[in-house]
Amino acid sequence: MRFDVLTLFPEMVENYFNFSILKRAVEAGVVSVNTINPRDFAANKHKKVDDTPYGGGAGMVLMPQPYVDAYESVEKLENSITVMLSPQGAPLNENSVKKLAGYEQIILLCGHYEGFDERIREIIKPVEISLGDFVLTGGELPALCVIDAVSRKLEGTLGKIESAFDDSFADGLLEYPQYTKPREFRGLKVPEVLLNGNHKEINEFRQAERIKRTKERRPDLLN
Amino acid sequence: MRFDVLTLFPEMVENYFNFSILKRAVEAGVVSVNTINPRDFAANKHKKVDDTPYGGGAGMVLMPQPYVDAYESVEKLENSITVMLSPQGAPLNENSVKKLAGYEQIILLCGHYEGFDERIREIIKPVEISLGDFVLTGGELPALCVIDAVSRKLEGTLGKIESAFDDSFADGLLEYPQYTKPREFRGLKVPEVLLNGNHKEINEFRQAERIKRTKERRPDLLN
Repeated sequence: MRFDVLTLFPEMVENYFNFSILKRAVEAGVVSVNTINPRDFAANKHKKVDDTPYGGGAGMVLMPQPYVDAYESVEKLENSITVMLSPQGAPLNENSVKKLAGYEQIILLCGHYEGFDERIREIIKPVEISLGDFVLTGGELPALCVIDAVSRKLEGTLGKIESAFDDSFADGLLEYPQYTKPREFRGLKVPEVLLNGNHKEINEFRQAERIKRTKERRPDLLN
Repeated sequence: MRFDVLTLFPEMVENYFNFSILKRAVEAGVVSVNTINPRDFAANKHKKVDDTPYGGGAGMVLMPQPYVDAYESVEKLENSITVMLSPQGAPLNENSVKKLAGYEQIILLCGHYEGFDERIREIIKPVEISLGDFVLTGGELPALCVIDAVSRKLEGTLGKIESAFDDSFADGLLEYPQYTKPREFRGLKVPEVLLNGNHKEINEFRQAERIKRTKERRPDLLN
């Protein structure tokens, strides 16, 4: 999977791949990440990428020229999708993550300041994705979330393939409680059933816990 | 606002504050960020922080001892809240962001691997927050999203205070389309109404666009 990220803060994105599982995925050749800075495409003396909004209002708006030219400089593979990170997009979920994982290339458009000039949307026609109903200073963290969530689904990223399917939401329920060593910590013990080696009982316990937890915390997921 | 972040990857968190608006907020003294690595608290020879799950299953689970001891080492201010980033938490939204912005200190608990030993939850009793219904390799990106979204609400972070209130969701609607220079780009023109200087008409145009866009993209927000 190839990720191309348009961002005014390439280092913010690149730094994330120095760590943990994503680092391993890059080293293993499962994913590659490329950043493109629209500032390098600004056709004006001061490399300006934003300006005040027509009609007034606070903040700065990303100008169409640097952004669209930067986008058009990206080599498009055959099986490619372009995603704009925006609070106005469809909220990311496990279904959209799975669909995204089926592409060969994901081009991610990060905004900053007050947002994109509308003509950037009109020309590029991206799919728009939001992390949720809250506002961030830019699209870089959402882009990294997309990259991280999608990369987890690709074979070779996680230590064992099963890991990705044990998680919350994999079948619409929250995850069961997990326990590891020691057997007792500050008087709190690991449930007996997890220690007896009876896999049928363990599975029943875990499934019951998942349903109980989902009912308590996220009844909306059960509908 | 003071953020204390428990994470096995402190640099991943710290790096984010080298950029943009968050950098300004730190320099202006509006926010401070402190990281604590549970690995430094591991009371075993190999500084081990995770182990295999009781009852079987893929992945590794964070052990209670290093994590709880690390948590207890954090100085708690009077008006403090502890947040665990977990796919099992309540999804973050503008309301929870606003509530969080009212605290003096937010302690953020990041997991990694398969998750937290359940006794970490039982002892620390954190509020649990999720970014949405998708799974990431760790809690660091969600923690940074919380820090970023909350910091935007604090006076002194954004250039103009109004910026935070112009955004999507500030009153339950998506944002209106934005335009900046040039007036015409590749044949696409800025809507005439934004150029005429009539603030009443501009406000009416923008409000109508917000309602239209919310209806088209996120009809659930209108309920």
